[in-house]
Amino acid sequence: MSDFRIGLIGSGRIGQVHAGSIADTKGATLAWICDPFIDGANTLAAQFGGKTTTDPEEMFASGDVDAVVVASPTPTHLDMIDRAIDAGVHVLCEKPIDLDIAKVEKLRDKANAAKVNIAIGFNRRFDPQFESIKNRVQSGDVGKLEQLVILSRDPGPAPRAYIAVSGGIFRDMTIHDFDMARYFVPDIVDVFAAGTNVFSDDIKAENDYDSATVTMRGRGGEIIVIVNSRHSAYGYDQRLEAFGDEGMLYADNLTDTSVKRYSGATTEAAEPYIDNFLVRYAISYRRELALFLDGIRSGTNVNPTFDDGRAALILADAATESARTGKTVSVDGRL
Amino acid sequence: MSDFRIGLIGSGRIGQVHAGSIADTKGATLAWICDPFIDGANTLAAQFGGKTTTDPEEMFASGDVDAVVVASPTPTHLDMIDRAIDAGVHVLCEKPIDLDIAKVEKLRDKANAAKVNIAIGFNRRFDPQFESIKNRVQSGDVGKLEQLVILSRDPGPAPRAYIAVSGGIFRDMTIHDFDMARYFVPDIVDVFAAGTNVFSDDIKAENDYDSATVTMRGRGGEIIVIVNSRHSAYGYDQRLEAFGDEGMLYADNLTDTSVKRYSGATTEAAEPYIDNFLVRYAISYRRELALFLDGIRSGTNVNPTFDDGRAALILADAATESARTGKTVSVDGRL
Amino acid sequence: MSDFRIGLIGSGRIGQVHAGSIADTKGATLAWICDPFIDGANTLAAQFGGKTTTDPEEMFASGDVDAVVVASPTPTHLDMIDRAIDAGVHVLCEKPIDLDIAKVEKLRDKANAAKVNIAIGFNRRFDPQFESIKNRVQSGDVGKLEQLVILSRDPGPAPRAYIAVSGGIFRDMTIHDFDMARYFVPDIVDVFAAGTNVFSDDIKAENDYDSATVTMRGRGGEIIVIVNSRHSAYGYDQRLEAFGDEGMLYADNLTDTSVKRYSGATTEAAEPYIDNFLVRYAISYRRELALFLDGIRSGTNVNPTFDDGRAALILADAATESARTGKTVSVDGRL
Amino acid sequence: MSDFRIGLIGSGRIGQVHAGSIADTKGATLAWICDPFIDGANTLAAQFGGKTTTDPEEMFASGDVDAVVVASPTPTHLDMIDRAIDAGVHVLCEKPIDLDIAKVEKLRDKANAAKVNIAIGFNRRFDPQFESIKNRVQSGDVGKLEQLVILSRDPGPAPRAYIAVSGGIFRDMTIHDFDMARYFVPDIVDVFAAGTNVFSDDIKAENDYDSATVTMRGRGGEIIVIVNSRHSAYGYDQRLEAFGDEGMLYADNLTDTSVKRYSGATTEAAEPYIDNFLVRYAISYRRELALFLDGIRSGTNVNPTFDDGRAALILADAATESARTGKTVSVDGRL
Repeated sequence: MSDFRIGLIGSGRIGQVHAGSIADTKGATLAWICDPFIDGANTLAAQFGGKTTTDPEEMFASGDVDAVVVASPTPTHLDMIDRAIDAGVHVLCEKPIDLDIAKVEKLRDKANAAKVNIAIGFNRRFDPQFESIKNRVQSGDVGKLEQLVILSRDPGPAPRAYIAVSGGIFRDMTIHDFDMARYFVPDIVDVFAAGTNVFSDDIKAENDYDSATVTMRGRGGEIIVIVNSRHSAYGYDQRLEAFGDEGMLYADNLTDTSVKRYSGATTEAAEPYIDNFLVRYAISYRRELALFLDGIRSGTNVNPTFDDGRAALILADAATESARTGKTVSVDGRL
Repeated sequence: MSDFRIGLIGSGRIGQVHAGSIADTKGATLAWICDPFIDGANTLAAQFGGKTTTDPEEMFASGDVDAVVVASPTPTHLDMIDRAIDAGVHVLCEKPIDLDIAKVEKLRDKANAAKVNIAIGFNRRFDPQFESIKNRVQSGDVGKLEQLVILSRDPGPAPRAYIAVSGGIFRDMTIHDFDMARYFVPDIVDVFAAGTNVFSDDIKAENDYDSATVTMRGRGGEIIVIVNSRHSAYGYDQRLEAFGDEGMLYADNLTDTSVKRYSGATTEAAEPYIDNFLVRYAISYRRELALFLDGIRSGTNVNPTFDDGRAALILADAATESARTGKTVSVDGRL
Repeated sequence: MSDFRIGLIGSGRIGQVHAGSIADTKGATLAWICDPFIDGANTLAAQFGGKTTTDPEEMFASGDVDAVVVASPTPTHLDMIDRAIDAGVHVLCEKPIDLDIAKVEKLRDKANAAKVNIAIGFNRRFDPQFESIKNRVQSGDVGKLEQLVILSRDPGPAPRAYIAVSGGIFRDMTIHDFDMARYFVPDIVDVFAAGTNVFSDDIKAENDYDSATVTMRGRGGEIIVIVNSRHSAYGYDQRLEAFGDEGMLYADNLTDTSVKRYSGATTEAAEPYIDNFLVRYAISYRRELALFLDGIRSGTNVNPTFDDGRAALILADAATESARTGKTVSVDGRL
Repeated sequence: MSDFRIGLIGSGRIGQVHAGSIADTKGATLAWICDPFIDGANTLAAQFGGKTTTDPEEMFASGDVDAVVVASPTPTHLDMIDRAIDAGVHVLCEKPIDLDIAKVEKLRDKANAAKVNIAIGFNRRFDPQFESIKNRVQSGDVGKLEQLVILSRDPGPAPRAYIAVSGGIFRDMTIHDFDMARYFVPDIVDVFAAGTNVFSDDIKAENDYDSATVTMRGRGGEIIVIVNSRHSAYGYDQRLEAFGDEGMLYADNLTDTSVKRYSGATTEAAEPYIDNFLVRYAISYRRELALFLDGIRSGTNVNPTFDDGRAALILADAATESARTGKTVSVDGRL
């Protein structure tokens, strides 16, 4: 079987991650890189190969592309998915699917009826830690799942300019945790959220929170708690515990090595945690792509779908509203 | 200095714990045991000494008591505190102070004006783990405290008859976590809570929750999250993390030994956690008593006060209301 | 049953530990304290009670003593055991039993024929960590025991004056590890040892090692490795791993609390280890005494015996010889 | 710069590892695969490319090779190194360099005078765990290094046929640990070893040990202890502790994920350890090759050298003799 010819839309930080994954993935060739800032596209092409263009339309029209990875700014995501459907090209689109649920709803029927695979880039589902817990929960390791605690703190805040267009902490950062929640408990019925400002004047100035927590309930009475901070002095903090009636599974953070230090000051001291999301989640990004391609080959999509992207956004919207009003927001029947 | 003559009111499970603590504490003598079920009092007296009576009034009138430990049923707590004040006897009263905040408010002025020390039995403040974190937070080990996560799961549910009169999970079980929250963040401004029923028909039949979570915010923007379950397959789960801008302190659970097992099935496997609150918190109960007596000697009360007991009940009431309405409940200015 | 009247011989550091254990042990009364430095005896008596004398003979002659704890200098141990046998008094004697195996052999027959219980103070057998591993090994948790690794490092070296009369690292410090080895593998057939001088000029000046390692083999082919140092920057290092064909059990060090710190420098950092042997082994000293008294009551001695004390000394002598000659020393048939 | 054309000699298990590393390494091309069993060579070539031959001479004569990786049986190693030198081709040779020190000595001068880089495949030096400890020891993290403990147990024994020609446990298995010891303490002065047979009749029938331990001393008084077993129920056991006067660094084993399980039977239970040396050391094999190529490029060889291979064999010979005689064997001045 010949290689999948992949088009990359967006050559920024996350686009570069995907370019690396494509280069490392057997059966995939980086065929196109699209970016209005053509220098970025060209730099990436010099490293990984591929034709470049400022206009995705040129790529779609070429007939030389089997699948696209959408890593362009959020407001372009839906349009790229739409064009990919029209071109009969499979699409793996970065999160969030959009910041405006109305636009998402508009494309929904077409997306769900599309003949191509549409995958949303919730890469954490493919992190070996979280996937292992998911599999073990499903095989009964904790009995009936009753509580899910997601501790998710970024190493440091994004720049103010990014915050300004991010859609707020729930749509930008917590969106990953919402999808993680649904990975374990797809049918969520209500959402409560609270945010505070404890360290960043920039984030406050943008009317956004630097710290937040979310409580959700599943149809089966599951309680889901998310704790977020936009900073973490000890590195990227990404933990999860799945508690059931027969036990608990816990995913701890990752260090570069298993080395521990013992001194007069501390014992059993591990290294600071990996503080870069690209490194922390490097494997998950590769597995996300590999499974996306497997899905195309086999005709079965195991990646998060358009509707998963939509559901995460609905939860983020609900959290945003809840944090503003102090009231629980029902999403019953809306996911 | 001669021993403190201590009167114990209540000879049930928790009364027995206190009897043991009194017996083990230098400078303390168990002088009286009061219980309407005189057999319980007599059994305890046979083991630890002390006169017995069914009527606390006999003890208060005797003049042979310097301090009392109130371990009788919750509805009697306020009355016992009241009588102790009148008798000029110091009092260490079990939690919760009462289930009815109106009654608490009624006694408040008198209690705060009393010449005797009044301590409420939030023993967990004296657990070496939590106390160490408190001290280290105060000395700056995490910088500014931003988030507090309290994971608190009981080994197994209390009997239905107990649940029926417990005042509900927030007033009975979470009350300890509310006080723990205030140990770190005394000035809490609002409370959200959610409960579900996932495993106990008995608890559901009593219109109570078997699982719950609480989100609170402090005046300084601190986020406090409590996760509760009335059961835990792996033993008593009592963890806490204090997150600040410079780091995090985490208290893990306790095992009997430091032994870990490595086999073909698992590695680094520790023992199940101590699953009995009396064993898990044995040291904290002793330290609670010792500090209560130190406080009497020195005239400075370091134990939780009447107002701490009142504050925890206000938070529990707020959580109960929030869980019913789905709305955040303000306690601003009420603690 | 009335209390055991216990005589304590020696009021130094380890004598004080035993005095505290006696005071805390139900069914035991400190009846006598003997020390040629009568001030030490009197100070201890003021705290814990008991008559004092400079002459143990006065105590033995009094008829007011049921058992003695020998905590006097090593050269007096055998004589005290001998007198206790003659007086019909049970004896718990500190380690080592003596530094001269010839003297030990001389008393051996009499000791083994004695009607009183003779226990040697290898308290570590009663440490909950090591005892748990022993019990689990016996119940088959690791299958057939094949290897035993004992990592044993003191917080800091004893003073030079103590080193001078200690009998050398193997008889003074490793003696505990030799007994621990025999706790798991009683029938040891040969011994190799090596010592070096890496940090202490004082110890070198006394022709002793500050660092050492011992390799022994058991009759069943078990390999036993001991690693010693007279200092440890991170506190008292007392670990053990028992490796068998079906798994491994490992005893880690102990900290005061379960608190771990996460910062920009390190994560999961525990406290320094307990660096005082009296604190680290407080429980084992109490259990040693309690089991000694149980043994008297029941007529069954579960404490290490005179012959265990002798065996440890034979191993220490063999190690001393091996370290000097560089050759394996057989102890086959000598234990 | 064009790719290094690499010839692989040997297409067995370890040859396959190197073929994979070469394929994954930028700047390297698998140009030749030599194996008298041409099927193995062809299978590998089909996967990774390269010409195949049964005769290495064909490859050396081709002029189409810049460096060779020697993964053929041990008795061929020295001959291949010799030929590579003559052909002016750099060589990375698997461990052990040979089983006969006399043959090694014979080639030594020529090897040390050679213009090509000669590297011995002690891949564990490039394991991130051990390398991190090495770097931290060098930067002073433990102060002066005093003790090194290497715990090294294989998941399971090699087949009897392999054992028969392996040269014995010290030359075959411990050889890695000898090099690891010299990675930290190059100047070793004496060696003691002991072996036993506790589980494998096959190994016993070959007059080899299934379990062993080695004690060595460095010039600076360092004590080095190695503990080996040919099996381990809980997976590949590869730990190391470096103890110095200011602290200790410890490398723990590796699991696939950071997930821990808590149940009624055990808590904090990790997965069994990775039990395949190819997976456990996959990164070290790749780094070994990458650094070998870097060394060629820069003219500086950071890989273990011919003399490192020789030194490890001298230590293995000394251990073999010591285990037979029960005496310490001096290697002072011989490394």
